[in-house]
Amino acid sequence: MLTALSAEAEPAMAIITLTTDFGTRDGYVGAVKGVIARLAPDTTIVDIAHDIPRGDVAHAAWVVSTSCQEFPHGTIHVVVVDPGVGGARHEVIVKVVGHWFVGPDNGAFAYVAERVSDAWAIESAAFRAKRVNRTFHGRDIFAPAAAAIARGVDVTSAGPMVRLTGALPWGTRARGQGRIVHVDHYGNLVTDLPPGEAGDAVTVAGHTLPIVGTYEDVAPGELLAYVGSARTIEIAVRDGRADARLDVPRGTVVLPAAVGEPYR
Amino acid sequence: MLTALSAEAEPAMAIITLTTDFGTRDGYVGAVKGVIARLAPDTTIVDIAHDIPRGDVAHAAWVVSTSCQEFPHGTIHVVVVDPGVGGARHEVIVKVVGHWFVGPDNGAFAYVAERVSDAWAIESAAFRAKRVNRTFHGRDIFAPAAAAIARGVDVTSAGPMVRLTGALPWGTRARGQGRIVHVDHYGNLVTDLPPGEAGDAVTVAGHTLPIVGTYEDVAPGELLAYVGSARTIEIAVRDGRADARLDVPRGTVVLPAAVGEPYR
Amino acid sequence: MLTALSAEAEPAMAIITLTTDFGTRDGYVGAVKGVIARLAPDTTIVDIAHDIPRGDVAHAAWVVSTSCQEFPHGTIHVVVVDPGVGGARHEVIVKVVGHWFVGPDNGAFAYVAERVSDAWAIESAAFRAKRVNRTFHGRDIFAPAAAAIARGVDVTSAGPMVRLTGALPWGTRARGQGRIVHVDHYGNLVTDLPPGEAGDAVTVAGHTLPIVGTYEDVAPGELLAYVGSARTIEIAVRDGRADARLDVPRGTVVLPAAVGEPYR
Repeated sequence: MLTALSAEAEPAMAIITLTTDFGTRDGYVGAVKGVIARLAPDTTIVDIAHDIPRGDVAHAAWVVSTSCQEFPHGTIHVVVVDPGVGGARHEVIVKVVGHWFVGPDNGAFAYVAERVSDAWAIESAAFRAKRVNRTFHGRDIFAPAAAAIARGVDVTSAGPMVRLTGALPWGTRARGQGRIVHVDHYGNLVTDLPPGEAGDAVTVAGHTLPIVGTYEDVAPGELLAYVGSARTIEIAVRDGRADARLDVPRGTVVLPAAVGEPYR
Repeated sequence: MLTALSAEAEPAMAIITLTTDFGTRDGYVGAVKGVIARLAPDTTIVDIAHDIPRGDVAHAAWVVSTSCQEFPHGTIHVVVVDPGVGGARHEVIVKVVGHWFVGPDNGAFAYVAERVSDAWAIESAAFRAKRVNRTFHGRDIFAPAAAAIARGVDVTSAGPMVRLTGALPWGTRARGQGRIVHVDHYGNLVTDLPPGEAGDAVTVAGHTLPIVGTYEDVAPGELLAYVGSARTIEIAVRDGRADARLDVPRGTVVLPAAVGEPYR
Repeated sequence: MLTALSAEAEPAMAIITLTTDFGTRDGYVGAVKGVIARLAPDTTIVDIAHDIPRGDVAHAAWVVSTSCQEFPHGTIHVVVVDPGVGGARHEVIVKVVGHWFVGPDNGAFAYVAERVSDAWAIESAAFRAKRVNRTFHGRDIFAPAAAAIARGVDVTSAGPMVRLTGALPWGTRARGQGRIVHVDHYGNLVTDLPPGEAGDAVTVAGHTLPIVGTYEDVAPGELLAYVGSARTIEIAVRDGRADARLDVPRGTVVLPAAVGEPYR
C-alpha cells in the first residue's frame, strides 16, 4: 500500500514510530522509549497507538497500513503485538518502499509488505540487547534494532534475508468482493473493497446500502456506506455504532449490490 | 482565557498540539502525525488528549481552554472532535493572542475565542491535501493546515476571514452564577464560576458546600467544593466520584450560597 | 534498581518523562506539557503512562522502577499520582544514580530510591509557579521544578535536603520470599522474587508452578511462572488473565516450592 508515496528527501533526524498492545498504564512503553533514547539519542519517537486490542495482530496490521505510509521516507516503524513472544515466530526488519518496519513476523506486516519487500532476521548482536528477556522482545530486540537502523548501522548485517510467513486469517482479497477487515474506535466497519469495485451500493449482512458521501447524508441512527479514510468502503451508523448494530465478525464478506437491486 | 499570558519570545521550533476523539487503538492519530512529520519536519508534535468522548465538542472546548494556554506563543493547536465531518460546519484557522487553533468551527473554540480572535476559512490548496477524504479532515485538511502555519505560510492566504459560529449548549455565563461545564477523568464536576463570585459556599443539586482548600480538608467519601485548577469552583468527592454521587448533567447551575445559610 | 546502569554521557537535549494518573481525556497532561515547553523549550517530553489507576501510588512505583532506568543518565522523571495533593505529603526532587525524579513523596519513589538517593524539598520560587493551585501541583510545582532542572538550575537551591518517608503497603522484601507487587495490563501478576531465589518452581495461592521459559511452553489457558521483563518471577495465563484466574491481591506472598514437591 506504500507504492503510491511520492519520492522525497529523508529528514535529518530519524523518526521511530511505536504501535503496540502494551496499554498506557504500565512501564512497557516507557522502557521501549528509554532504550531508544539511550541508544539513538538524536531520534524523534512518535506514538501511533498503544491500545491495540491484546494480541490482535490483524488489528495492528490495519493500523500500520493506514498510518505509517503518511510518514516521510526513512521512518522506522516498530510494531509489537506479539502473543507468541519468545516462541516460534521470527524477529524481523522489513524494508518497504523506503520505510522500515521492525517487529515479530506474525502477520502485522501482511498489508504493508504484500506487494514488495525485503526482510532480514534480527540476529546480530548490534541489533539486540546483550541480555534478552524471553517475554519482552519490544525492549530487548525491537527497540535496539530500530535504534541501530536510526544510527545508520547497515541493515544487511542484522542477519540473513528471510521470507515473511505471517498471514492474516482472511487471506488475500479476490477481485469484486471485500471483507470487513477492521472495526475502529467508533464502531465503524472498515472493508478492503475499493470504491471502483463497489459501484453505487454494497450488500453486507443482509443490508443493501447506497454509497453516500458522509455521515450527514443519512438521518441520525441510520446505517450508511461511504468511501472511508483508507479509500475503501466503510459501513457506519450516524451518531451510533455499526459494530453493535450489525454484530458481524471481521472477515465477513461485503459485495457490490446487483445493478437495479432495490435499496432496502 | 488567553489574555493573561505574558508576552514572550516564540520558540525556534514550531510546536503542534493534538486534541482529538480518535482514541489510541486506531491509525488515525498516527496518520495525522505522519502528515505533519512529512510536511513540516522541523516541528515538535505534542499529544494533549485523544480520548475526548466521541463527538463531545463541549468536552474538547474545556480541555483546549485549560491546557493550550500553557504553551508558548506561536504554538499551533489542532483540535478535531468532528461529528459533522464532511457536512455543513466550516474548517477554520483561529488566531487568539499569539496562539493558533485549527479545526472545525463547531464550538470547540468557544472558550478560547470568546473575547477576541481572528478566523480564516481553510480553502487554499497550500493548506489542504490534494485529495480530501470526506470523513477524515484531520488528516487531509487540519494536519496540512497546521503544517503550513508551522512552515511560515501566510495565514491570510488560507481563505477569507470568517466569523466563528460554533457555540456550546450552555451559552455565555451570567454574572453571579456558574454552570457545570466539564466532568473530568476523576469524576470531578468543574464549573465556570469564578471564586470571586462564589463567596464562602456554593449550592449545587440541593447541597450547600463550603469552599475548602483541598481534598484532605474533608473526610474520605465526603463532597467538597474548592478552587480548581482552572481557577473556577470545582465539586469533588474525596477518594470518590462526584459525578456518580450527584448524577447531574453538564449545564446544571451552581450558585453562591446565601449569606448565613446553614451548611448542610 | 538503577545501580546496574553503566556510566554514559548525558545527552545534549534534556529529556523529561511523565508518569501520571491524569488519564488521556482531560487537559491535565497538556497543561503540564505546556508549562515545560514554555519554561524549558529545548527539552524532549516523553510520555511513560497516563492511565495509572487513580491514586494507585504502588502501581506508579513499579512502572517508574521498570521503565525509567532505561533512559540515559540525566533524564528527569516527573511522577504525579497524588491523591494527597495540597495536603500533608511533601513535594520533592530525588537524585538516584544520575537520574532525577520529581513528584510528591508518597511512596512512588520507594523502589528507585531504596538503596541510595538524595532528596530536596521543592520550596524555592525558581522551582514553582508564581501562583500555586492547591489541587494541581503537577502543573504548578512539578512541571516548573522539572523545567528548572532541565535548564540547569542548581538543584541544591530548590530547598532543604529531606529524607523520603513515602512507603509501600508491603514494605521491604525478606530474603527467600516474594510478593505480588504489580498487576499489569495483560492481567499478569508480577512479583519481586528474583529468579535466583525461586529455584525451579514457585507456590502462589495454592498452585505450584514450575518456572518455564515463555508462554508457548504451556497450553493455551494454562497458568505459568517465568522470569518476567523486570527480571523477577511473573505469573500469567497463556492467552488469558492470571488476575482473573487467581483473584489474589497485591501483597500476596509467592514462595519457592519445596525441593522435590510434586508439581500440581
